[in-house]
Amino acid sequence: MEKKIVMSGMRPTGSSHIGHWEGALKSWVELQKKHQCYYSIVDWHALTTEYHDSKNIKGNIKELLLDWLSVGIDPEKSIVYLQSSIKEITELFMIFSMITPLGWLERVPTFKEQKIQLNDRDLNTFGFLGYPLLQTIDIIIVRGNIVPVGEDQVFHLELAREIVRKFNNFYGEYFDEPMEFLTPIPKLPGIDGRKMSKSYNNTICISDKAETIEKKIKPMITDTRRKRRTDPGVPEDCPVFALHQSFSSKEEIREISYACRKASIGCIDCKKVLIKNMNDFLDPFRERREKYEKLSVMDILEKGNKKARETAKRTLEEVRELVKI
Amino acid sequence: MEKKIVMSGMRPTGSSHIGHWEGALKSWVELQKKHQCYYSIVDWHALTTEYHDSKNIKGNIKELLLDWLSVGIDPEKSIVYLQSSIKEITELFMIFSMITPLGWLERVPTFKEQKIQLNDRDLNTFGFLGYPLLQTIDIIIVRGNIVPVGEDQVFHLELAREIVRKFNNFYGEYFDEPMEFLTPIPKLPGIDGRKMSKSYNNTICISDKAETIEKKIKPMITDTRRKRRTDPGVPEDCPVFALHQSFSSKEEIREISYACRKASIGCIDCKKVLIKNMNDFLDPFRERREKYEKLSVMDILEKGNKKARETAKRTLEEVRELVKI
Repeated sequence: MEKKIVMSGMRPTGSSHIGHWEGALKSWVELQKKHQCYYSIVDWHALTTEYHDSKNIKGNIKELLLDWLSVGIDPEKSIVYLQSSIKEITELFMIFSMITPLGWLERVPTFKEQKIQLNDRDLNTFGFLGYPLLQTIDIIIVRGNIVPVGEDQVFHLELAREIVRKFNNFYGEYFDEPMEFLTPIPKLPGIDGRKMSKSYNNTICISDKAETIEKKIKPMITDTRRKRRTDPGVPEDCPVFALHQSFSSKEEIREISYACRKASIGCIDCKKVLIKNMNDFLDPFRERREKYEKLSVMDILEKGNKKARETAKRTLEEVRELVKI
Repeated sequence: MEKKIVMSGMRPTGSSHIGHWEGALKSWVELQKKHQCYYSIVDWHALTTEYHDSKNIKGNIKELLLDWLSVGIDPEKSIVYLQSSIKEITELFMIFSMITPLGWLERVPTFKEQKIQLNDRDLNTFGFLGYPLLQTIDIIIVRGNIVPVGEDQVFHLELAREIVRKFNNFYGEYFDEPMEFLTPIPKLPGIDGRKMSKSYNNTICISDKAETIEKKIKPMITDTRRKRRTDPGVPEDCPVFALHQSFSSKEEIREISYACRKASIGCIDCKKVLIKNMNDFLDPFRERREKYEKLSVMDILEKGNKKARETAKRTLEEVRELVKI
C-alpha cells in the first residue's frame, strides 16, 4: 500500500474507554507506521450535541489528548490537532455548504437516529444537520484519502464522496474521494454486561489506575447460576468471561471456561486473573501517560495545530482559486 | 438618537442601479453622519445563489466598492469591507449553527420564494437555507444594533433577534437585539416600464456615463396614446414621467405633466429634460468615481477589512469565552 493521508477524529466528550481502543485507536496506532496521519480532536462536533452544556468540552480536550498519547499515538509521526483551532475548516465548510443539497444531509440515517436517541436535547438544529458535511470538510481539508471508521460511519463516507464528486464536477478535479478503512466493531461488554458506553457509566477507561480496575471488576455480577462457589457456571453467560476474551490468552480462556463449568474455580479467582491481565495490558499506557503528564501536552497540541493549519491553508487557497472567491 | 452601530451589506452581483441608491445607499450615506457604520460586500451571500457560475464575483467586488465610494460612502467614516476576508464570520456562523433550529430557517418566506423565482438553479442547498443565519452573523459580529433594510427584509431581522435571544439565554446577555431602520421601497421603473431590476436588463446604473444615459432614455417607449407629436398624453401612463418623479424638480414635473396632456411638449423634449436632470444628479457621483479610480481602491477595502477584522476578532474571543469552546 502506498503512503496515504489518513484522517480521523474523536469528540472530546469524556475519558476514552477500551472500546475506543479496540474500535479505533488500535488501528490509528498501526496506520501511523505507514501513512501520514491527521488525528483531530473535533470540538465543533462535540458542540453540535453539547451546546446546551458546553462547559466540559475544554477540560475533555486535554484528557482526550492524553488518552491518545498514552496508547501510542506518536506526535512526531502523526499530526494531532484541535478542530476549532483551524479557522480554515469553518471557511471551507461555508464554501461547501453552497453546493451541498439539503436532501443529502436529511437522508443521513444517523441524523434521525441520534435525534431519537438523544431526546433530552433539541437536535433539530442547523448545525446538527450539517454534521456529516463538517466531517467531510475535516477529511478533505487535509487532503485525507483514507478514513478509519466503524461500519456505522460508512454512510457518512459515501456522502463525503458524493460531495467531493460534486465539487470536482463544478470546479475541476481537485479532491480525492476518501475511502474508508474499516475498523473492528468492539465486542466488549461494559462492567454491567450491557454494551460498553459512557452513557451507561459502565466503562473501563484507558486511563484507569490499577485500583480502579480492581474496584470495577470485583463487584461485577457473573453468571447468576453460580449462587454458591460449588455451582457450575456457563461462561458464555458471564460478562467477566466476555472481558477475558479481550485481555486473556487463549490458554487462560480455555482453562477458565473449563474450570467455570466444573466449578473448580471461583468467580473471585477468575476475576483476579482478569484484573491482572487488564493491568498488564494497561501498564504501558500508564507509563506513557505519566511521561506525557510531565510535559506540556498543550504545547504538543499547539505544534500539531500549526502543522494542520499549514495544510488547511494551502487547501483553502487552492479551493478559493478554483471557486474564484 | 445616540450613536449606534449600523450594519448593512450588498451582494457583489453587478453594477448598482439608481434603485439601489433610493432603496439603500441614500440612507447609508445619511447614517454615516451620525453613527459608526459597517458596510459589507457580502460575497458569501453571492455564492449562495451564484455557486454554479462564480467567475464574476471577484470583478464585481471592485465595481460595487466604486459604486459605494462614488455615491458618497466615506471610507474615513464608514468601515467598508469584504465579508469573506473576515474568517471570524465563518467561525461565528459555525457556533450559531448549533443553536439555530432548522424550523426557524425553513419558515423564512424568502427561502421558498427565491427557490421558485430562481428556478434555473438548485437552491435546495444547505448554504442557501443558512442564508438568514449568515445575515445575523454579519450583523452581530460587528455588534450592529441598527440595520437599514427594506420592508421585505424585516422578517430576516426578526429572525436575527430570535437567534440573538436564544444565544443570550444560553450563554449570558451579550448581544444587542438588532433593530431595523426602514429604508424606502424604490418606486423607480426601469427603462422598459417594468420594475427596475438587473435581471430585466432595464436599469439606470450609478456608474452610467452621460452618453449611456442618453442612449437608454431616448428610445424609451412613452404613453402609447401619443402616436403623433400632436396627440395629448397621460403622464401617469408614461415610464419617462415616472422617472421624472425622482430626478426633476416639483416645478418641472408640474409643467411637464401639463404640457404632456396638452401636447404642447413632445416626448423627445420631455426626455431631454429628464436626461439633463439625471446627468446633473449623477455628475457628483461621476466626479467621485473618477477620483477614486485613480487611487488603489482595493487598498481602501483592505484597510476596512483590517478594521472589521479587529472588531470581529474581539467579538469571537468573547463569544468563545462565553460558550467555553
